[in-house]
Amino acid sequence: MGMEPTTRLFTFAGGSDGQFEIERQTVVVGEALPVSLRLACVQGSGEEITHPDWILRGTTSNGRYTTRAEHDQMTAVQAPMGRPEATLGALIPIRKSPAWWALTQDERRAIFEDQSRHIGASMRYLPAIARRLHHSRDLREPFDFLTWFDFAPEHEAAFDELVAVLRGTEEWKYVDREIDIRVRRVV
Amino acid sequence: MGMEPTTRLFTFAGGSDGQFEIERQTVVVGEALPVSLRLACVQGSGEEITHPDWILRGTTSNGRYTTRAEHDQMTAVQAPMGRPEATLGALIPIRKSPAWWALTQDERRAIFEDQSRHIGASMRYLPAIARRLHHSRDLREPFDFLTWFDFAPEHEAAFDELVAVLRGTEEWKYVDREIDIRVRRVV
Repeated sequence: MGMEPTTRLFTFAGGSDGQFEIERQTVVVGEALPVSLRLACVQGSGEEITHPDWILRGTTSNGRYTTRAEHDQMTAVQAPMGRPEATLGALIPIRKSPAWWALTQDERRAIFEDQSRHIGASMRYLPAIARRLHHSRDLREPFDFLTWFDFAPEHEAAFDELVAVLRGTEEWKYVDREIDIRVRRVV
Repeated sequence: MGMEPTTRLFTFAGGSDGQFEIERQTVVVGEALPVSLRLACVQGSGEEITHPDWILRGTTSNGRYTTRAEHDQMTAVQAPMGRPEATLGALIPIRKSPAWWALTQDERRAIFEDQSRHIGASMRYLPAIARRLHHSRDLREPFDFLTWFDFAPEHEAAFDELVAVLRGTEEWKYVDREIDIRVRRVV
């Protein structure tokens, strides 16, 4: 793990360059990000990115709530990111409130799954929607999580439904900043 | 949380400067660190530290396993770091194996507490031993955790007992790098 330190870090940058055209950038709650034309997504710290409008980083990490049974169930059906037909995507940075982070593990797990059915609800959209979660809170970043999704155009309505379901949950009451950035792959 | 980004980050540096004299630096398992005379411990990224022999960083974070009951029980008895009489200390950086990180949350919790009694064992040494845990794994650091302890000289034997107990647990079978750095406050 210590020998491959850069491989889990990902950088997302809004600007005039990048593989993705930004189609919509919606502030769901909290402070906005500058509106950009393109989104770049690179593995590593993105030092090669010049003059971004904004830059966000996060690292993939061990699961914080998933049980073995849930993990194995998801692994059996989920699709990898970057399928050729998955030309649409979404980057959804969120921050959770101090009240969330003051909860203990058992309290957060109860809200996350038992009351909000986060895993259960998301499972229904696999394998159509692929997802990669990045943790940012411990990296001195403005958001706590960056979730990066991709899907084929015919699954866009399903994706809209998934985010609407999650935004209605008990868990989402603790989200105090969220931006919904919809993209289309152009490179 | 995003507004106070540096406050949870701490930097530890071995070198010729620092508030602590290093009395012993023992490799418990895995690769060594260069042996140093002094240890500096600063809040933030430690950019003011010049010519360290080595530098390690970590961030305090939300608890990953502790339940509300355990948290409240510990909070009721634990002491803060930096008591005047707590002139001895220990910095213990550890890394856990890929096998540990491949476990799911429920499996890690079972090993951490149910099989290893990590919280239960540690509770017996409160408030004599004060502790601050720093997470490093997601920061592209060589260790996964840095634990920083302080205690009065009369509790040194109790501290030795605590680390011996933890090193004998099921959890510690997953520790593949550990250094035990014992210090005395001199500034």
